[in-house]
Amino acid sequence: METLETQTQVTLAGAGPGDPDLLTVAVLREMMCADVILHDTLVSAEVLALAGPQAQLIETGKTGFGPSMKQGDISSLIVRLAQEGQRVLRLKSGDPGVFGRLGEELDALDAAGIAYRVLPGITAASAAAASLGQSLTERGRNRELRLLTGHDADGLAEQDWSALARPGAVAAIYMGKRAARYVQGRLMMHGASPATPACVVENASRADQVIRPATLATLPTVTAEAKGPAVILLGLAPRDARTALKEAVL
Amino acid sequence: METLETQTQVTLAGAGPGDPDLLTVAVLREMMCADVILHDTLVSAEVLALAGPQAQLIETGKTGFGPSMKQGDISSLIVRLAQEGQRVLRLKSGDPGVFGRLGEELDALDAAGIAYRVLPGITAASAAAASLGQSLTERGRNRELRLLTGHDADGLAEQDWSALARPGAVAAIYMGKRAARYVQGRLMMHGASPATPACVVENASRADQVIRPATLATLPTVTAEAKGPAVILLGLAPRDARTALKEAVL
Repeated sequence: METLETQTQVTLAGAGPGDPDLLTVAVLREMMCADVILHDTLVSAEVLALAGPQAQLIETGKTGFGPSMKQGDISSLIVRLAQEGQRVLRLKSGDPGVFGRLGEELDALDAAGIAYRVLPGITAASAAAASLGQSLTERGRNRELRLLTGHDADGLAEQDWSALARPGAVAAIYMGKRAARYVQGRLMMHGASPATPACVVENASRADQVIRPATLATLPTVTAEAKGPAVILLGLAPRDARTALKEAVL
Repeated sequence: METLETQTQVTLAGAGPGDPDLLTVAVLREMMCADVILHDTLVSAEVLALAGPQAQLIETGKTGFGPSMKQGDISSLIVRLAQEGQRVLRLKSGDPGVFGRLGEELDALDAAGIAYRVLPGITAASAAAASLGQSLTERGRNRELRLLTGHDADGLAEQDWSALARPGAVAAIYMGKRAARYVQGRLMMHGASPATPACVVENASRADQVIRPATLATLPTVTAEAKGPAVILLGLAPRDARTALKEAVL
């Protein structure tokens, strides 16, 4: 296998959840220099507007329920463009290492002997919690934060639910729109209170962000109202609502 | 309670793990505008060098094993500076919502009726995994990522360990230097293989970053070698080492 590792040819980077102000300096700089930017559909128009004038933009398809281009085709395209000598930026929504199918693209680059680097991004959970005025962890409440995908919810084992059902547990569920009713059922089966706070954050960080406070009891209904990409925060509510909830329920 | 919520007076923000290129555009901009920046010791000198010339820098103390200034004193200082009319930036290492004691400061601001906003940051787990060339999640390996603190490890319940001990589980342990032996013992008691890959990333993203590959068997020894702040990635190894490990162990 021949390698040409004198220079990084491919950058795989996280664009964050959508607000261009949540781009990192490193990613913004790479957007200005790249010859080709292959981006998920979830990467916002406001972010893409910051690409350098020389950059060719290629949309690889929707995320959430599988890419429109097959993953293998995306990986092959990245390799081919890099082999042509282009400076390639693979831009993913959020953080590329969190439910971003990064590994499959790195495997393809490794197999082709192409040098790359990975630049992290702000993941949706961080942005959503910030917009609620909430910390994802809190002393005396939770010493553990879980990031889950609801997409393959049938793969989650029983003991995970029992820990999540404890009072104070906090989890962010990515691509959780289809899984909300399943998650609700599992948690309540494991003893979670129907009054457990939750929140659905739609289009986190974007101008059209919608924060939908819920409880475990209302989670499926509230989640169904979300039109855009949504992250579910289990165990958290918007700061004011949390206070109100304490007064009303406890 | 009187409130002056016409304008955000306090920004609580994440500086990321240390590399100034991992600052977000929003945080960089606020660093240029703030009158006062109260920062953790872990916020790097390279990041602080980007503060505007007008900004007064106040170090609030070390993180990891408790601030040098008491948390209540930090919260009071933020409130007092904001009440004086200063534009205050509270700058925390990583993401303020991930083991950053954000809630206590927001409570103090709420009590004083001071308007604030929270800006997320790149958390150490994202930066550390990126530096390994690894994804934190991967189809067929783990659908769940856990962020834990090792600081209060005695507070973690048994069933958490049993899920973490499963092959393919991935977790990032923050402030895990003291807890490495305890974590090792718990996981092995719950059936984890001593050959489980792990990695200690010291000074993630910084010029003096050190990646220390380990296995569960060697984790306490390897962790003890780390001098700077370190995040432990359980279930992940640097990309090449992972391949080597597969060949050697499986």
